[in-house]
Amino acid sequence: MENLNMLSLFHASGTCSLASCITLEEIWEKTGAEFEVKKVSFADGDQHKPEYLSINPKGRVPALLTESGILTETPAILLYLAQRYPEATLAPLDDIFVLAQLQSFNNFLCSTVHVAHAHRFRGSRWANEQSSLNDMHAKVPENMTTLFTLIEETYLSGSEDKPWVMGADYTVSDAYLYTIARWLGGDGVDIAIFPRLNAHFKRMENRPAVQRAISR
Amino acid sequence: MENLNMLSLFHASGTCSLASCITLEEIWEKTGAEFEVKKVSFADGDQHKPEYLSINPKGRVPALLTESGILTETPAILLYLAQRYPEATLAPLDDIFVLAQLQSFNNFLCSTVHVAHAHRFRGSRWANEQSSLNDMHAKVPENMTTLFTLIEETYLSGSEDKPWVMGADYTVSDAYLYTIARWLGGDGVDIAIFPRLNAHFKRMENRPAVQRAISR
Repeated sequence: MENLNMLSLFHASGTCSLASCITLEEIWEKTGAEFEVKKVSFADGDQHKPEYLSINPKGRVPALLTESGILTETPAILLYLAQRYPEATLAPLDDIFVLAQLQSFNNFLCSTVHVAHAHRFRGSRWANEQSSLNDMHAKVPENMTTLFTLIEETYLSGSEDKPWVMGADYTVSDAYLYTIARWLGGDGVDIAIFPRLNAHFKRMENRPAVQRAISR
Repeated sequence: MENLNMLSLFHASGTCSLASCITLEEIWEKTGAEFEVKKVSFADGDQHKPEYLSINPKGRVPALLTESGILTETPAILLYLAQRYPEATLAPLDDIFVLAQLQSFNNFLCSTVHVAHAHRFRGSRWANEQSSLNDMHAKVPENMTTLFTLIEETYLSGSEDKPWVMGADYTVSDAYLYTIARWLGGDGVDIAIFPRLNAHFKRMENRPAVQRAISR
């Protein structure tokens, strides 16, 4: 019999939905809660087909199918997962200020860092001429360098006892940061210029949940 | 004696920090909690001056000064305010799925709708050539129309018993939607083409908290 409480994640490889996928893997590891991943092929344009638009009319991933309905937008899904499985301790749910700091970081990733990256291949969302798209494309390395310099200096401590974005404890923000940091190479930025970020990235790659999410 | 628990909002007129300002006014009305507004003049470039960068190194508004520290990013501040003053009932805090729907809407506003608008005057964030900036500027009306059509059809019911974004109850999302809808005229889009949004906008203008926030 189908498990009606099992979550389904609509996921496309190479996209920000990896953060939700990693988080679901972390939850499975800690609680045994199973989930399902439904692949959306951007190469085949699945996200613009009527079937997927009935799931998410915005034509983007991730989308999370729950027994109550569908959720979209990475920061909203990550907070929902952390609240749904508090025993997985993936967010500081008992301190509204610290939780707001986590939310602030995730919002910065989605509204500023992800958007800066998107100007590499998605420039046609905001301009029509090929010369404009080339111009946007050329500016991506500079913008990503500036933004990750801010992340390196403001959000990562670099100390052994505070290895994660929020300090001592791993949270959903680490999965989200790692997901976007994976784009740096393609964006023309060498992650090695950010020693703290680079160490964070390697820490993430050692987590079994991350390895399972990547191999999907 | 200074009230150390009093919140201070760094606010610039015409920007998305209006949503936080309206929310603080709503909270004052319902709970009596006082707050302070500190003006940041974008005309004078205050947001790029060292004094403000020490508050928010991203050089943007809003920033909320609390007794625990500083918070940035509108969706994070709005959730924090709703959680700090639950008696003001500004978010569905007791239902994690409905709360995630609210968060999803706010994230869509910050990462997609606000970003589409920003290509009108802030194109130099993402491109260098004047021709690119002109190209981006020209596409803003089309993009804002597309996005607000989605909001009109997907998020606003148009029914009398569900006058707000989340249905029957006013939430922080209404303040945020209203704040961005105020930009439509300048973006070259007539709000009257969206009857539900237009009715929502007028409902918002009738709220004393909105009138006080605007007059600041």
